[in-house]
Amino acid sequence: MSANKIGELFSLTTFGESHSVCLGGVIEGMPSAFRIDDSFIQSELSRRKPNNLDFATQRQEQDTVEFVSGVENGLTLGSPIAFLIHNVDVRKQDYDYLQGLFRPSHADYTYYKKYGLKLQSGAGRASGRETTVRVVGGAVAKLFLNTFGITITAKIDKIGHYDYATQRQEIKRELSTLRERGETLGGVVACSVQGLFCGLGEPIFDKINAQIAKAQLSIPSACAFEMGDGFSGCERYGSEQIDHWQENFKTKTNHCGGVQAGLTNGMPMDFRVGFKPIASLQREIPFIDTLGNIKDVELTGRMDCCIVPRVLVVVEAMAALSIADFVLRDKLNK
Amino acid sequence: MSANKIGELFSLTTFGESHSVCLGGVIEGMPSAFRIDDSFIQSELSRRKPNNLDFATQRQEQDTVEFVSGVENGLTLGSPIAFLIHNVDVRKQDYDYLQGLFRPSHADYTYYKKYGLKLQSGAGRASGRETTVRVVGGAVAKLFLNTFGITITAKIDKIGHYDYATQRQEIKRELSTLRERGETLGGVVACSVQGLFCGLGEPIFDKINAQIAKAQLSIPSACAFEMGDGFSGCERYGSEQIDHWQENFKTKTNHCGGVQAGLTNGMPMDFRVGFKPIASLQREIPFIDTLGNIKDVELTGRMDCCIVPRVLVVVEAMAALSIADFVLRDKLNK
Amino acid sequence: MSANKIGELFSLTTFGESHSVCLGGVIEGMPSAFRIDDSFIQSELSRRKPNNLDFATQRQEQDTVEFVSGVENGLTLGSPIAFLIHNVDVRKQDYDYLQGLFRPSHADYTYYKKYGLKLQSGAGRASGRETTVRVVGGAVAKLFLNTFGITITAKIDKIGHYDYATQRQEIKRELSTLRERGETLGGVVACSVQGLFCGLGEPIFDKINAQIAKAQLSIPSACAFEMGDGFSGCERYGSEQIDHWQENFKTKTNHCGGVQAGLTNGMPMDFRVGFKPIASLQREIPFIDTLGNIKDVELTGRMDCCIVPRVLVVVEAMAALSIADFVLRDKLNK
Amino acid sequence: MSANKIGELFSLTTFGESHSVCLGGVIEGMPSAFRIDDSFIQSELSRRKPNNLDFATQRQEQDTVEFVSGVENGLTLGSPIAFLIHNVDVRKQDYDYLQGLFRPSHADYTYYKKYGLKLQSGAGRASGRETTVRVVGGAVAKLFLNTFGITITAKIDKIGHYDYATQRQEIKRELSTLRERGETLGGVVACSVQGLFCGLGEPIFDKINAQIAKAQLSIPSACAFEMGDGFSGCERYGSEQIDHWQENFKTKTNHCGGVQAGLTNGMPMDFRVGFKPIASLQREIPFIDTLGNIKDVELTGRMDCCIVPRVLVVVEAMAALSIADFVLRDKLNK
Repeated sequence: MSANKIGELFSLTTFGESHSVCLGGVIEGMPSAFRIDDSFIQSELSRRKPNNLDFATQRQEQDTVEFVSGVENGLTLGSPIAFLIHNVDVRKQDYDYLQGLFRPSHADYTYYKKYGLKLQSGAGRASGRETTVRVVGGAVAKLFLNTFGITITAKIDKIGHYDYATQRQEIKRELSTLRERGETLGGVVACSVQGLFCGLGEPIFDKINAQIAKAQLSIPSACAFEMGDGFSGCERYGSEQIDHWQENFKTKTNHCGGVQAGLTNGMPMDFRVGFKPIASLQREIPFIDTLGNIKDVELTGRMDCCIVPRVLVVVEAMAALSIADFVLRDKLNK
Repeated sequence: MSANKIGELFSLTTFGESHSVCLGGVIEGMPSAFRIDDSFIQSELSRRKPNNLDFATQRQEQDTVEFVSGVENGLTLGSPIAFLIHNVDVRKQDYDYLQGLFRPSHADYTYYKKYGLKLQSGAGRASGRETTVRVVGGAVAKLFLNTFGITITAKIDKIGHYDYATQRQEIKRELSTLRERGETLGGVVACSVQGLFCGLGEPIFDKINAQIAKAQLSIPSACAFEMGDGFSGCERYGSEQIDHWQENFKTKTNHCGGVQAGLTNGMPMDFRVGFKPIASLQREIPFIDTLGNIKDVELTGRMDCCIVPRVLVVVEAMAALSIADFVLRDKLNK
Repeated sequence: MSANKIGELFSLTTFGESHSVCLGGVIEGMPSAFRIDDSFIQSELSRRKPNNLDFATQRQEQDTVEFVSGVENGLTLGSPIAFLIHNVDVRKQDYDYLQGLFRPSHADYTYYKKYGLKLQSGAGRASGRETTVRVVGGAVAKLFLNTFGITITAKIDKIGHYDYATQRQEIKRELSTLRERGETLGGVVACSVQGLFCGLGEPIFDKINAQIAKAQLSIPSACAFEMGDGFSGCERYGSEQIDHWQENFKTKTNHCGGVQAGLTNGMPMDFRVGFKPIASLQREIPFIDTLGNIKDVELTGRMDCCIVPRVLVVVEAMAALSIADFVLRDKLNK
Repeated sequence: MSANKIGELFSLTTFGESHSVCLGGVIEGMPSAFRIDDSFIQSELSRRKPNNLDFATQRQEQDTVEFVSGVENGLTLGSPIAFLIHNVDVRKQDYDYLQGLFRPSHADYTYYKKYGLKLQSGAGRASGRETTVRVVGGAVAKLFLNTFGITITAKIDKIGHYDYATQRQEIKRELSTLRERGETLGGVVACSVQGLFCGLGEPIFDKINAQIAKAQLSIPSACAFEMGDGFSGCERYGSEQIDHWQENFKTKTNHCGGVQAGLTNGMPMDFRVGFKPIASLQREIPFIDTLGNIKDVELTGRMDCCIVPRVLVVVEAMAALSIADFVLRDKLNK
């Protein structure tokens, strides 16, 4: 059992707080003699960084990954691949004003109740920075999956109630005003996996859709998940939702999102993940102290207004880690 | 690693096909000296049985559970609790017409690709009957949770596009005609967990919402999951979604569904699960054979038209198993 | 985590007490479409039964195994293989005289301290009968290993201080008098595995010798383990213990017992397991009651005088389970 | 499943090769708010370093541990504790002469067969340096165990065939000449654990003696293990080996080494571990090349002549890790 690990055969174990020396991870299960393309991994990390739009966090982190084991001369050794991402812009004192206070809709209170102590330094493990480690693990998983022809692409589906495909102007306008209003906004990500072969997954508890759902809902702020048609398909008749056969064993439609009875069916895997707006409003809001007194405090620090654009690479990473695990499992019955 | 097990410390391992001698399970982690209330467990199983409405399966199974180890004189021993549910109404020949054929939107093809063989006898593990074992495991978990004051209640939220709270007449009419039309229908279940204490869950990959999502999406036909406000909350501003403090550390609203940063926050846990309509239409539909030829076949056998009413107890069971696991984990940091 | 399971990919989970309805197990990881030879499995079980010598237990058990899932028409399905061994000769009342008493060098006291209760019915999980389940799991593992040409043979090495190869007469005489003297005797088993290919095992914690040691020491009464030359090799110089190369990558000697740096090296795996004499003397010995009072009691029941002959098949079974697990792991890096 | 992890609830996952940037580990399960005493951990590491006797390796490593997560202001946070030990004295070119060659009785060949490649840089994971990580993990486990009053002490029992208690002069003389003779020597370590409470362990496969055996045999060069009287007890009668009760539930003797039916019985746990002589003779010995040609080569590099004195702290560390895991498990049934 490890609460800091995902995957059984292809796995990522993570460590690090937002203000510790570094974050990092250990990747196990990557076969030997695979080439690790550093520039690809770094480019994946850069997809997660705040860009020049106004709506992203302003903490400046280089997010440079250092591989410290498991790779020699660019090739995997079959041993655990450990990597570090150093925290270089740590300012613990930024969080001094939070001593003895719990923000609403944050990890502060639940962590305090779980661990019996309150971190001096910010959010600890409950920080968006934690996802950098997922991105590195996911990037290595992608390198593995690419050799099987499997590719993963996440896109913005909605920002707030706006459809990203048709309402980009509205979205841009909305986002541009969020920071000055001290406001945040949620959204939805759509992800598609191409090139999957048939039979990945397990019949009962480790259905591939179940595992993908877990992996996605483990991303901070994720609160909803749909495979294929999802909730809208639940409103329909069976005759509307059946995916009829084509003669090559593909199906004419893909209402099921590429998963049949917990196993991939050879069609693209399509799923959606909803992210609620983060609670770090840049305005005065009521906090509670350890004695139960409520008082208005203005949250400071370096937060995002809308994490959806930055989270795309994280959604892909978690999908990649899950699928790589099932690709390894698939070898066992051969 | 076990694909047939759910839970780390409080766990259920299952076995059995729809047409094998029996289905069964092994429950581990239940502490010693707990009373096992047979009648409660049997009453949970009966909630899953086809009732006298027209829309449920007509396979007649007694679904009587036999505990064969781990219990003596009604008390748990601390050893694994194994139980059996015998298959008494097995008619393998009912499935003879399926030899060499794959139904659309069924497990037939994906299992065939995974295991390289085709069961003679129906759906094997991919059968609604598999959920009986979950119900027994969940019932034992409920007995455990009850001693902590934790209770779980699932209700029908929607049948098709009808709201169960306000449109019961429409639903009743709809369901009454499904079988004659050879049609099936999906729906949504809402589940609420009361009495949870604060701090259950793990910060990163084993967030309680992630684990609950996995457990729920492992139920046959489940395809969508929302915690708290779910997708609708993703359309809103942070200022609308914050759950503001009350002085007793409860919150005025519960948009988050009782989970904050992956841990319970002491409020009720609320989530919804969507079930797509099953594909077993009672009419002629196109099958595909192993050579890729498509032909119309009329599906026979004993199927449900709408599984939503019967699945309530399964939703509760999967929630109970997940939460019992976290209650045990919670002991480790004390 | 499961305390009742051994193996990661090829695994056996067990349940059952010596006086419950049945003992049983769940085998996972066995690939699909393997033929299960019932008669072989039954013949393995019969190797564990008391034979016509005087030194074995006199409880009469049929030890008939019933496979209840995972097999159809003699072929594995890829799903979990569950099996039961019914307890037909249960006489709980035989143990009534043990109420409130702890035997010396038995599980009674340690179980009581762990679980906070005392079984009415004999030894619960701490019974030699528990090993029947291991034998069935091991027999299935052997069927799997046989397809790779791997075979496992355990032999008696010593009974008491007598060497089995040269002192059989002394041993026979010794054993023939044990029961009348109410005495028991220990011994040593030597096991050899042929046909192993090179590279099975894991470098750090899951060295194959470490895993084999764990599996063997989990057998009741096992208390010592040696790989290859074992303790005697620890008294020697490196120049005496090196296994020098032959040109076919075999080695001239096999001091290491076929394991180099935690991985098989292609030579036979040789190890020894020591079993202490069981404590169930058939004579009056001091017990202790729950208040700490010591009193002489004569142990009754049906016990072995020397378990070594019957344990051979158990030693093989535990080796088979461990090696099958590593054979599956070996697929992951290919 | 992780081949680089030991422990279920209190666990250590390790990474790093002897010539990578660093070695390191991730400790999970350590409860929050425990003080981490850096100086103790560093002092444990120094026990493993080559000392001023002639018989130890001459690679000069500082072995300074850096904790990079999971600790703030000297207190554990409840999150994973990651640490690094940098490789500062790396001289990969020392191993250039080994290209294309396999040493006898080394990891070279078995690793090559497992991973399909040959490290440029020495022994990779199969290096004595890997045990530094175990020592750090074990030191943290000791800090945890100390709060329960549990202490662990390993001592040299034998060097070669000499008894350490009575033949220290002979041993000193022997060791002093090993290096000049290019020779190595094995030995035996005896370990005792004091302060254990009763009931630690699991009845079937995870018996505490089985787990301890696995942990010990995972140490490089370990090849034999005995609990309590071990092999010598296997030569005796039951009447000689029973540990008779005292009135305080202690026993008059401790033949069983403190373990009864897989669980601690409240007596000291005593076990012995045998270490074979390492194969790195400092003289010309026959190597084999990838084509199967055998040729004499003189092994160079920085090796130990007798690892027994340095391995004491590793034996303790592995015991501490195993026992800490069972102490956490023990909370689950309370």
